Amino acid sequence: MNYNDLVEQINLKRSLLCVGLDSDLNKIPKHLLKLEDPIFEFNKVIIDSTADYSVAFKPNLAFYESLGLSGWKSLEKTISYINERYPEIFTIADAKRGDIGNTSKMYAKAFFENLNFDAVTVAPYMGKDSVSPFLEYDGKWVIVLALTSNQGAFDFQFSEDAYNQKRLFENVLETSSQWGTKDNMMYVVGATKAEMLKDVRKIIPEHFLLVPGVGAQGGSLEEVVKNGATEDKGLIINSSRGIIYADQTEKFGLIAELKALQLQNEMSAFF
Amino acid sequence: MNYNDLVEQINLKRSLLCVGLDSDLNKIPKHLLKLEDPIFEFNKVIIDSTADYSVAFKPNLAFYESLGLSGWKSLEKTISYINERYPEIFTIADAKRGDIGNTSKMYAKAFFENLNFDAVTVAPYMGKDSVSPFLEYDGKWVIVLALTSNQGAFDFQFSEDAYNQKRLFENVLETSSQWGTKDNMMYVVGATKAEMLKDVRKIIPEHFLLVPGVGAQGGSLEEVVKNGATEDKGLIINSSRGIIYADQTEKFGLIAELKALQLQNEMSAFF
Repeated sequence: MNYNDLVEQINLKRSLLCVGLDSDLNKIPKHLLKLEDPIFEFNKVIIDSTADYSVAFKPNLAFYESLGLSGWKSLEKTISYINERYPEIFTIADAKRGDIGNTSKMYAKAFFENLNFDAVTVAPYMGKDSVSPFLEYDGKWVIVLALTSNQGAFDFQFSEDAYNQKRLFENVLETSSQWGTKDNMMYVVGATKAEMLKDVRKIIPEHFLLVPGVGAQGGSLEEVVKNGATEDKGLIINSSRGIIYADQTEKFGLIAELKALQLQNEMSAFF
Repeated sequence: MNYNDLVEQINLKRSLLCVGLDSDLNKIPKHLLKLEDPIFEFNKVIIDSTADYSVAFKPNLAFYESLGLSGWKSLEKTISYINERYPEIFTIADAKRGDIGNTSKMYAKAFFENLNFDAVTVAPYMGKDSVSPFLEYDGKWVIVLALTSNQGAFDFQFSEDAYNQKRLFENVLETSSQWGTKDNMMYVVGATKAEMLKDVRKIIPEHFLLVPGVGAQGGSLEEVVKNGATEDKGLIINSSRGIIYADQTEKFGLIAELKALQLQNEMSAFF
């Protein structure tokens, strides 16, 4: 998917919502457990219930890998289902990958060719050759971790560089944004660091940001939009637990739909 | 596997060798391609041929993920084979994972419970809560990226901190080494940065290091041992391409054995 198609979807749906598919056997409604592939059945209901209000779906790879082969199978079925049924929706493999060039190339193959995701999240620690292989696919995106939503973000991401007085996340933004363009790179900036979005926008005024941390982690949607929106909006705002685990009964799809609708409603105020 | 068992293996075999299983359908001997699971068959021969001279095996996850479901199947079979046949050999999932706490917990489950690896490589960018969940398993290890062997290492890892004048990789070593002990943490330090090993050892005098970059990437074994060895050796030195792709004929196992033996021989001089 290219930049303009994504912007079009956002405007059409008046939504910035990404639904995070952190699907966990221990948290999905119990009645699904008797089915052959509970994770896929759960995802299908969540996807169908929230697709009208969402512009992106983001499976979190860890949850699938934790189930081994059967988890990988559920993941393959999930991404195929989204791509077939909702080809207009942006898909993100939240995988936090990154390795030396020849290895990152294999990860790119895994997520872009084999699974056919639109985007994959990548950690910047290993530098340019760990990110570049993901940029060689037309219409595909790399989403680089800049400022994450967790407490551990304070361990290294704020470290100030002695030579240019910039913090590590700012140097990551500045340096890595030269490796690609706003048409194939986005950045993760946590909603819990919403006040930093102004600083982020000074460095990358146009790139899309993937913003986790609204909801369960406590970030404010209004602050995120106020400090981080561009003319094209430029924001994909993720909610996982707040939507997908809002209900544990057979009505979980309906409740997820309501939660997604609520969020989309709040978002539509900014259009 | 605990620290003492690993040291014992190293002394018994007079070897620091880790064989990297970067198994690629495009690079393995062609005659294997007609078998049902070429990657597993390839790994089995490599493992059996090199086990006498190695203390560790390290499947590189990207290569398996790039094949989707069948790759994950080959990985499961490979780790099971090693664990059953060579339980004394240390196993490393080279996965470069790391995410917020609840997600890292799922990755830990994937690699330690489901696949039963001894260790997993983790990127430090997201800080403490992205690493800690891996430390909650008895006898399991987290191997944190400190100074990687690739060109991109220079993009951020050498960034000097304005407050303590330490470089990012040094701050990663110093800060993260407080999260665990030498009994459950190791660090990746590339052989191509062997001259830096003295600086690394000032900060973590006792931790094991996983050292990639000897061989295809050009690092020197002698420099690594001279600058990085501890009293217990404290080094696991990886070679992937130089061993596993040394030959493309039906004799690839024998040639891999010879290459592993050569490396072990060079290593034995340091005992």
